[in-house]
Amino acid sequence: MTEIEQRRQAIAARLPELKVDALLVSSAANVRYLSDYSGSNGLILITRAETHFFTDPRYAIASQTIPGKVHIVRGPLIAGVAAVLKRKRIKKIGFESAWLRYEEYAKVKDDLPLGSGLVPVGRVLEEQRMVKSAAEIAKIRRSVAVNSEAYARAMKRVKVGMREQEIAASLDFEMRRLGAEASAFETIVAAGERSALPHAHPSGRKLAQNELLLIDMGASVGGYSSDMTRVAHAGTPSKRVRDLYKAVLEAQLAAVDAVRAGIPSSNVDRAARKVLKQYGLDKAFVHSTGHGLGLEIHEPPRVAKKDKTTLAAGMVITVEPGAYIEGFAGVRIEDTVLVTEHGCEVLTPTPKELLTI
Amino acid sequence: MTEIEQRRQAIAARLPELKVDALLVSSAANVRYLSDYSGSNGLILITRAETHFFTDPRYAIASQTIPGKVHIVRGPLIAGVAAVLKRKRIKKIGFESAWLRYEEYAKVKDDLPLGSGLVPVGRVLEEQRMVKSAAEIAKIRRSVAVNSEAYARAMKRVKVGMREQEIAASLDFEMRRLGAEASAFETIVAAGERSALPHAHPSGRKLAQNELLLIDMGASVGGYSSDMTRVAHAGTPSKRVRDLYKAVLEAQLAAVDAVRAGIPSSNVDRAARKVLKQYGLDKAFVHSTGHGLGLEIHEPPRVAKKDKTTLAAGMVITVEPGAYIEGFAGVRIEDTVLVTEHGCEVLTPTPKELLTI
Repeated sequence: MTEIEQRRQAIAARLPELKVDALLVSSAANVRYLSDYSGSNGLILITRAETHFFTDPRYAIASQTIPGKVHIVRGPLIAGVAAVLKRKRIKKIGFESAWLRYEEYAKVKDDLPLGSGLVPVGRVLEEQRMVKSAAEIAKIRRSVAVNSEAYARAMKRVKVGMREQEIAASLDFEMRRLGAEASAFETIVAAGERSALPHAHPSGRKLAQNELLLIDMGASVGGYSSDMTRVAHAGTPSKRVRDLYKAVLEAQLAAVDAVRAGIPSSNVDRAARKVLKQYGLDKAFVHSTGHGLGLEIHEPPRVAKKDKTTLAAGMVITVEPGAYIEGFAGVRIEDTVLVTEHGCEVLTPTPKELLTI
Repeated sequence: MTEIEQRRQAIAARLPELKVDALLVSSAANVRYLSDYSGSNGLILITRAETHFFTDPRYAIASQTIPGKVHIVRGPLIAGVAAVLKRKRIKKIGFESAWLRYEEYAKVKDDLPLGSGLVPVGRVLEEQRMVKSAAEIAKIRRSVAVNSEAYARAMKRVKVGMREQEIAASLDFEMRRLGAEASAFETIVAAGERSALPHAHPSGRKLAQNELLLIDMGASVGGYSSDMTRVAHAGTPSKRVRDLYKAVLEAQLAAVDAVRAGIPSSNVDRAARKVLKQYGLDKAFVHSTGHGLGLEIHEPPRVAKKDKTTLAAGMVITVEPGAYIEGFAGVRIEDTVLVTEHGCEVLTPTPKELLTI
């Protein structure tokens, strides 16, 4: 049995517990998880025994290899789904309430025969996706390797005077050359005081001497993401910069140290926060400690104060505390980490010393 | 008055006609249109007199320049919106039914006080966005120029034996170097028979002698998209390839020729289809002729058989007929085009002869 078929069976087996006869899958990542289809317009309907895949004529040829029944629909796919639901007289149809747009929900609902109904279900496929298979972990390892190698190659050429955009272009190019189909997200390159903006878009700003350079990047390889943040410094760092860096690094190492199967993911977040508090930097840490990643760059579990997920072996998460001081600088250090039975494996091979340019 | 403020006023003025007291804006592109915020987590609530902007603490610093009242929300933004709706006792709240996820819809709905209600509204901001301002057209021109120049630079280095992925990496790199913040979509590079897949992901396949190479690429510059498809050939093309190319080019030119303000966009689609039919290729044209573009790579109007939009001066659309022959090859030729009063301006400067590699 293929892995795709196993995934299909696993979710099909949960339909009775979800109290539905079928599940409409509309999240692009979940569609890919159940079909390997990586285009932009696909829907899947899972029943106990069948898989129906819906796409438009642009993908007619490419979809020939998709297992299950393939429906090529002209116009909105949701109309094709409604037709199958009607024809098959499916009564209770679960849908991904976190993903389905209200308009599509209304379209299916209006078209259902009397006695049929839509049932919002939670992120059941995301739950299933949290623990990665050996094949998925291998893909993430490749993605991490491509990302770190691209960083190493591009950083060799980074010099004072280069624009953030140029540096980002160079990082992205190296990822692609090494086999990434894309960057997993818009590469963040932030120099000087812009490093205090946790999600800065690369700008035309040039890296100057005696400044921090924050880089947050990830590759997408075979559909799977990696995620890493490193900080470099142009010239010898001041004591203030060294202290800030040291605090965040200590928080990151403490958080990584906390990771193991069986604990709530919030423990990892707490470990990072505790260290930053000791340095008076807890208020400067304005985001959560991490997130799951895989087919999406952000997927469950969250590694956050209030998250209730119990970590399990095979989950892949980021560990990325940071501290941001407006008008001065920000530091974030981030690894992609595999949860194991008794601890974790830091997949990211890039060193964590403060790199000097 | 700034352009952003004009946009806000234009939509606020439509609230009575939409029979709502406020509009919740959740599409990322519409949020950007109304605030210049380009992050991944923003919501806007527009009332007749006020603009409320919601984001999370990561963007606290960056959002200081956003006009209107800025709310920094920890956790789901929608909870922050619900709180404002409650406090302000807003009765009828319009929401973008094409964008709002069912889950968010349900969250706001459950939290509303008695007597308040949610009203689905159509793509009103997308309608407003269809006709571009002079400043927006200038940005699209820049995006088109970056895209075409990147194509010219990268194509000089394309040789038989290069992998699709390498070519894509090179195109993307040149775009970034020229000032694009990103590719507007995943660059399509498809060699040989893979060119018959209208949305092929670049693969490890190498370009061979006597093959077509289809490239579909766009830049994102200052948030605005461009979109272009060109086809090249490795070596002297056969008669079959030349004929296919000629038919699609003739269809593209006929479609461009049809563009002008005041006609239904479906006329443009029909013009392309008519030519392809003469060549017996109408069934090989498996998608619509084009789409609007701007802050999104696909936005209204559609240039399709059944679209009812009347073209207006200032709209920017793609014109991109294609013909795909399974197992052999596909050809698509695409320009970004500005609709004018009496015709159109083809913004894309790249020549449309079949380039020989």
